[in-house]
This record gives sequence, structure tokens and C-alpha cells, in this order.
Amino acid sequence: MITGKNYIGNALKNSGNNTYQAYNAAEFKMLDETFYCATENEVNNAVELAKSAFQEYTNFSGARKAAFLESIAEEILNIGDELVKTAMSESALPEGRIIGERGRTVNQLKMFAQLVREGSWVEATIDTAIPDREPIPKSDLRKYRQAIGPVVVFGASNFPLAFSTAGGDTASALAAGCPVIVKSHPSHPGTGELVSSAIIKAAEKNNIPNGVFSFLNDSGFRVGTQLVTHPDVKSVAFTGSLAGGKALFDLANNRKEPISVFAEMGSTNPVFILPDKMKGNTEELASGLAGSITLGIGQFCTNPGLVITVENDALDSFINSLATHIQKSDPGKMLNRGIAQNYFAKRKKMLDEKGIIVEGTSNHQDGLGNPTVVSVDASTFISNSDLHEEVFGPFSLIVKCKDFEEMVSVADKLEGQLTATLQAESDELIAQEKLLNVIKEKVGRLIFNGVPTGVEVCSSMQHGGPYPASTDSRFTSVGTDAIKRFARPICFQDWPNELLPDELKNENPFNIWRLVDNKYSQTKI
Amino acid sequence: MITGKNYIGNALKNSGNNTYQAYNAAEFKMLDETFYCATENEVNNAVELAKSAFQEYTNFSGARKAAFLESIAEEILNIGDELVKTAMSESALPEGRIIGERGRTVNQLKMFAQLVREGSWVEATIDTAIPDREPIPKSDLRKYRQAIGPVVVFGASNFPLAFSTAGGDTASALAAGCPVIVKSHPSHPGTGELVSSAIIKAAEKNNIPNGVFSFLNDSGFRVGTQLVTHPDVKSVAFTGSLAGGKALFDLANNRKEPISVFAEMGSTNPVFILPDKMKGNTEELASGLAGSITLGIGQFCTNPGLVITVENDALDSFINSLATHIQKSDPGKMLNRGIAQNYFAKRKKMLDEKGIIVEGTSNHQDGLGNPTVVSVDASTFISNSDLHEEVFGPFSLIVKCKDFEEMVSVADKLEGQLTATLQAESDELIAQEKLLNVIKEKVGRLIFNGVPTGVEVCSSMQHGGPYPASTDSRFTSVGTDAIKRFARPICFQDWPNELLPDELKNENPFNIWRLVDNKYSQTKI
Repeated sequence: MITGKNYIGNALKNSGNNTYQAYNAAEFKMLDETFYCATENEVNNAVELAKSAFQEYTNFSGARKAAFLESIAEEILNIGDELVKTAMSESALPEGRIIGERGRTVNQLKMFAQLVREGSWVEATIDTAIPDREPIPKSDLRKYRQAIGPVVVFGASNFPLAFSTAGGDTASALAAGCPVIVKSHPSHPGTGELVSSAIIKAAEKNNIPNGVFSFLNDSGFRVGTQLVTHPDVKSVAFTGSLAGGKALFDLANNRKEPISVFAEMGSTNPVFILPDKMKGNTEELASGLAGSITLGIGQFCTNPGLVITVENDALDSFINSLATHIQKSDPGKMLNRGIAQNYFAKRKKMLDEKGIIVEGTSNHQDGLGNPTVVSVDASTFISNSDLHEEVFGPFSLIVKCKDFEEMVSVADKLEGQLTATLQAESDELIAQEKLLNVIKEKVGRLIFNGVPTGVEVCSSMQHGGPYPASTDSRFTSVGTDAIKRFARPICFQDWPNELLPDELKNENPFNIWRLVDNKYSQTKI
Repeated sequence: MITGKNYIGNALKNSGNNTYQAYNAAEFKMLDETFYCATENEVNNAVELAKSAFQEYTNFSGARKAAFLESIAEEILNIGDELVKTAMSESALPEGRIIGERGRTVNQLKMFAQLVREGSWVEATIDTAIPDREPIPKSDLRKYRQAIGPVVVFGASNFPLAFSTAGGDTASALAAGCPVIVKSHPSHPGTGELVSSAIIKAAEKNNIPNGVFSFLNDSGFRVGTQLVTHPDVKSVAFTGSLAGGKALFDLANNRKEPISVFAEMGSTNPVFILPDKMKGNTEELASGLAGSITLGIGQFCTNPGLVITVENDALDSFINSLATHIQKSDPGKMLNRGIAQNYFAKRKKMLDEKGIIVEGTSNHQDGLGNPTVVSVDASTFISNSDLHEEVFGPFSLIVKCKDFEEMVSVADKLEGQLTATLQAESDELIAQEKLLNVIKEKVGRLIFNGVPTGVEVCSSMQHGGPYPASTDSRFTSVGTDAIKRFARPICFQDWPNELLPDELKNENPFNIWRLVDNKYSQTKI
């Protein structure tokens, strides 16, 4: 069923001569299928189709877009076992995880379907006319969000389904009314093609204009570069490394017409453990953290890479316990060779840094990621910014502060983060207002007495934080608000009612929530 | 009363040796006052104060911020005549306009005060916990918008009050909870200092932390560059030229930590006149447009620089009538020497372009901006992108299309715009769906049977459009939503109720609108 071809709109194409093979990360060997890198012409054709499809698709009602999204979800499930097996072989992720991720992918599509069917997400805002206002009459002004144009989505290595071909970026862009061109991730192109075939089936069943979706392969950077610099592409979504996200951000900003890039990049997700909490819960904290550090061999954006502690009676016992859990944990297959090599290199670099004490590692097996916990004193950490960098994988650095003041200094030195976790008794947290103020400036999400892994997909989720966690902290890539990345306000002044978008008409035909003359309501005008 | 010094927080400082004088644009002579360029140390001190003030100010309630904003409005009015006279001499704008602009400035401050006192702008979104959910419990998640950090605001030449020191950018940033450092516009530093003194008085009366506001002079680019590249500055707002906005955008993106820049830049604000409308309203359209082109000597962001027409029986008569109005109009003093020189140079360049026919100009007087209307056929316009550039001032280019198809081609060639205006009968507009679709992709605001000048300050206004109209079309610089530029979502997971921001507490103490478990309400939890 996997052809190795590109979807240029609804058509499979392989006009180029450059090919590559994907890697079976589960069995350490190359996979059989040959994938065709999209040619320059194929890339241009995909963007032209997207541009032309946009004008029709952007005017689709929420209900029509919802039906399309739900149909994609259904077609993904219809692929059945082949999708699960392909994703497992391309990512080395276990069956349970892939099935769970497929469920999440399907639910995300359904969540955005529900969001656009309900319709209030457009934030319709209306100020009615005041013809007799002095000194000049007030016009009728009505604003809502409309789709921004064709969006390029880059597949992520660590979520072959939920952050890739039909993942949250694609689902939110399609929901907004934007055509999507997916640059497939070279470590799971077969998974991508299968999911793409489901999207194309859904598009055909729902009479979606040809070009609303394309899927392009490339083992290098050429196709991605061409896409991001193409004048008819209007936005970019990416989940991956800081280097990758920054390169796309720079490309996009250096265009004649700069465009927005939402890149969700690195994060060390610091966990601050306050002493009273540690004293009473040493073992529980250690086992919870060990579980979070090793979950999915540490290959989550929200993996806790930093544990920040204050000297106290329980600290040694906490570190010993965490180290023991890590020693007992199993090393594991990583998502692809590049990620494994990076992990080994960055882990080694970290172990070689001055002042780093190895507290615990699991046993070593060639080619597998082995969970590792190290520690360092806060003054060394503060003075060496190399220690602040993310080691993507099951690695965590414990920072030992002499006192709260030093903990505040550590927090102040951190770069932007997706999350920070506070392990604390309520009373001791209330006393640390300064610490909380500093941490709040750095993060997108704050967790109390939990672990950072586990990102709920819902309206109140914020997945994105100050740079370098993401390129624009004002947006999220997870949850319903992810749609806001791909829409922009447009205002209609004194526009005839019959020509207004339905969301702004007097009749309020979809019964959406609107801000009318500064009051929230679902009423007609 | 004007000292020429800088406000470094609440203190007036002039430690540097570089000085300059402002120009009296109304009387073509230098003004008496000497202004001190802020030194490198003064800039650093202003940012340090802002950073430190941020941690306290960002936790201020909406009511406390509102009181501060209202107090600024009051203190601006308290300055009285001196402010009006200073602004008139520095900008050559007439008394009525300055008094009107002062009213707008005061009203913007009050509008943001009302917005943050009411409080729903934070978009509180709550998903309550489901402890018994299978396979894993659902956490309690609560999100709202918090201030982004210190913001640098650049004063605009064409609105010495409403888009400058205490203008919409400053008001929206202070409302969000961000300290503001204003880089004064060198053509109206005296106006800026007077307004700054009002802000500082209001800050002292309301116990606002020192550093929430600073005001820095410079006749060149050094202070602006230092501010935008300072690691503790978190966002930038600018209204002005494409070259200026783009330079700041590039500086901000090339920082180690890139930051957001909202630059509102150039726009030609095309007016599309459809033939049925033109036939019945030739004289009314011509006089209305002439008024919009010459208003404020054309020095508005929304000045109609392009008039796009279709050949028809009434076209010659429309052009003649518009030309006659322009010939009869008076040339006028421009905002400053730079703007006048630019206008003369760009106007001359445009008149020298191939295919340009001069339809009408007002009489020439040395140093004054003289209103000018020229025309060109659509095919020449399409093939020469130099004709698409803004000529900031009372200048408009009529583009003559053979038919609707050519009008669509012209629309398709345009860059991003703040506005587009459709002069049309409803019926003929309904028939031009393709034209409307193309125009919608290009603009932030669409006007029906009006003129683009006159930007209402309200919730439904969108002032910002696709690049190069602004650097991020997803935001506006006018209206209540301008506050969204300076705030970012933060999510609290399983956070103790007593430690949550008031807006997210179960009790909903401010009675704000919230999205709770995907339903809008003002209820408690």
C-alpha cells in the first residue's frame, strides 16, 4: 500500500530521481520502501494548488470543515493495523503508545471539528452604528477571524501521528480554513503517506477543493526551504529542535513578505522541589520523577530535564532514591538514529562538564538510550550556561541550591520554558512569592505537585512558552487555541448584511457568542 | 516647563553631551529648547528599572491599572494650552486637530481602563479536573493572559499624541501590565516630555513602581537600537515607515532571544469604484475622495493612495471632477522636514514614471505639500511594481482597468494593506465574488461606500493587515484588542485556588466572562 510517492493535491507523483529509504528504528535496519523526494516543480504545483483551493475552502462553513475533519479521523481508523505496524517500525515506539497516539490524533481532529461547528472561535466582535453621534457619525464595524492562507506543517520525530501529517498543526490549520502542505518527517514517511491517503480519501468524499492538502517527501532541507520561502505560503508550524525551528524562523523572516512561524522547540521543563514537600514525600517524589524522566525514553517536549532543589535533611535520600529508580530502569530504543546519536553526544558532553556528579544511570546497551541522572551545585550551574541546554532523551540534571535565594537566582538564569513544575506544600509556596514571580516570566504552563509530561488536549492548555521554548509565546500548539495561529482579524465597515460572513450577520444564524456593543451574547441584532 | 531631559523612571536625567533641537514645522525654524540624547547608561538604567518594576506591576489588579490610566488621562488634560501649543509648533498640525487628537488620546486611556477594570480581556479558560477519568485522571487546567514584560514604544510622526508617548501602544501595554519605555519621536520631543510629565505625575499619585514608564530622547537610531536589542525588553510597538518598521523587525528577530514587533507601516489603501456606483454618484464620489486624500495633507496611514476603476461612461467625468477638487485644494505644511522632502521626492519619481498622466495638482508653494492626482492604465500598473509604493502625503493614483477581469488582476498584484474600500451598488458587488475573495486576502479592514480615513477606536476595529501593512496581521494597533499584543497565555495545572490569579479562582471575584468546561459564563465554580 505504501508507494513512496508525494501527494501533490489529490494526485500521487514521483517525477524526481532523488530517493531515500527510511530506517526501521525498532529493528536497526533499513526499511524496504523507496521514497521519492519532491521535485522543485512538484513543490511549486502543491503551493499553486493550495493557493487556488484557499479561495474556495476559506469560505466553507464550520459545518463543512467539521465534516471533513471527522471524515479524516474515520479514514485514519479505517487504515487499521497497517498504520500501527508502520509507525511502530519507523519510530520504535511500542504498540500501546502508537494506538494511544492514534486515539489522540483522532480526538484532536474531532475536537477541532466541534470547535468550528460551534463557531464562536472566530471571536465575532460588533459595534453597531451611531448615525447621530457628534461630531461625526459612528460607522457599523464588525470583525471576525478569517483563515490566513496556505500553511506548511513539518512532521515531528517524536509524535509520528499526533504532531505530524494529520496532527494538531494540520487539524487546527484545516479547521481555520487554511490549506495545508505537510513536509513529511524523513524518519516516518510511510506512516505519513498512509495518513495522507486517509486525508485525501476524506477530501474526495467531502468535495474538498483539490490542493487543500499535499504531502511532500524529502530526506534533506531543500523541499522545506522551498516551501517556507515560497511567496504564496502564509504560515509555518514546526515541532522539533531549536536549531531546526530557528532555521525556519530565520528563513520566514528574511522573505520579502515575512510570515509567521510557530516553532515549538527545546525545553528543560524545570521541576522545583521545595524542602517541606521533599521531607514528607521523598520516595513518592523520586519515583514520580523517575517515571516522567524515563517515559517514552525521555523523548517528550515536556521531559523534566532539570530538578532544582534546596539543601535540606531529605536531599541526599531523595537523590539516592531517584538514582536507584534510574539505575533500575531499562535503556530503550530511540526514535531514529539522529536522535540517538545526539543523545549520546549531548549526554557525554554533559558528563564531561566541570562539577557534574553522576548520580545514577541504567545499564549500557549499544545503540539504546540509557536513562541518566546527574547533579551539580547551583553556583556552577549559574556560571555555566552550557549546563542549561536540553539533552533530548532520558536525562535529568539535579541542581542543588544552598537556599531559596540561590533557587531564585537559578530560576532567573533560565531561558524560556514550556513548563515549570512546583513540588511544594501550599504554605511554603505562598511564602516564596519572589520565586513564583520569576518562574512565571519564563514559562507557558505551571504544574503544582505533578510532573510535566502528559499534555492534556483541551481549551485551557498552553503548549508554547517564551523563546527558545517556542518562537511566539502568545500562541499554543496544543488545544483549541492552536487555531488562532492560522487566522487573522478582518473588519467590515458599513458592510451590507447580506454580504457579511454568516458569523457577523444581524441574524447570528449559527447562534455563536459575540461581543456586541461590548456585551457578550448569543442574541440577534 | 520643557527641560529637554529624559525620564529614567520617575527622574529627569541629562548626563550625556549629545543634544539636538526640534524643528518648528509650523513656522519653518528651529525651536529654542535643547534636548539631551539618552546615554547608553541611561538606556540601561531605564530597562533595569522596567524589569524590576514589572514583577510588581504585572500583579496589579485591573482596578489599580485602570486608576493609573485614568489618572494619566486627567494629568494630560491638566497640562492645558501648553501641550496644544507645543504640539502645534512641533507638528504644524492645526489647533482643532491637536485638540481632537488629545481627546482621542484621553479616550483611549479611558477605554483601556474600562477594559481592564471589567477584566474579561484575559480570556480566562478553565477545564475542571476529572479525577476518575480512564485511562488516566484529568488535571484541573486554568489559563489566562499575563503581561509579556517591558515594552518599547516608538513615537509616530503623524500622531504626536494619539500614537506617541501616551498613545494607543503605551495605553494598551500599560493596561496589559507591561512597563513602557518610550523612544520619543525627534520631531516632537517637547510634546513627548510634557505628556511624559503627566504620566509620571499619575504614576506617583497612584503608587506605581518606579520604572513602569521611561521616556528617552535621541535624534538618531542609537537609543532605539539599544532598546530593541536589550535582553530585558520583551516587545516593540512602532508606527511609521516600512523602512523603519522593517529595521526594528530585523533587529528584534536577530536577537539571541527574538521578540515580537508590532510595526504598523505603509499602505496605499486602495479604493475600488465599481461602474454602476460611479455612474449614479460621480460628483459625490469625487468630492468625498478628494476630502479623504487631502485630509491632514494626506498624512494618515489610511490615506487613499490608489483609486481603482473600470472603464465606463462616467469615468472621464469622475476623473475630471476629482482633478478639479484637487486643483482647488490648498497645499499645506507637512509634519516635519523629512516627511516633506520624502513627499517631494516620491511624488516627483512617480510623475516621472512611464505612463503616468497628471490629472490635477493644487498650486505649488515652496515647502508645502501640494495635493496631486495622477492616473495610469492597469496594464502599466500591473507590470511596474514601483507604482504600487506608497507616496506618504496628499497623493493618489487612479488605475484604469478595461474590465472586471483586469480589476481582479490589479487586486491580485497588490501587497498587504491596512484597508480596502469598495464603492459599489450591493448588486454589482454580489456579482463580483472573485474580486472580493482576492481583496479579502490582502487587507485588515474593508469599507463599503465610505472612505478609508477615520479609524474608529473600538472593540471591532482592525488596524493592521498583511505585510507590509504591518509585521503581524494577527494583531491590531487600534482598539481594545491592541492589548493582546502584549500579553501571553499561561496555564496553571492543579494549582491551589488561593494561589491562582483572581481571574482564575473558583469564586470568580471580578465576575468576568470565562470559558469553563467549554461553556461561556460568568458563574463561580
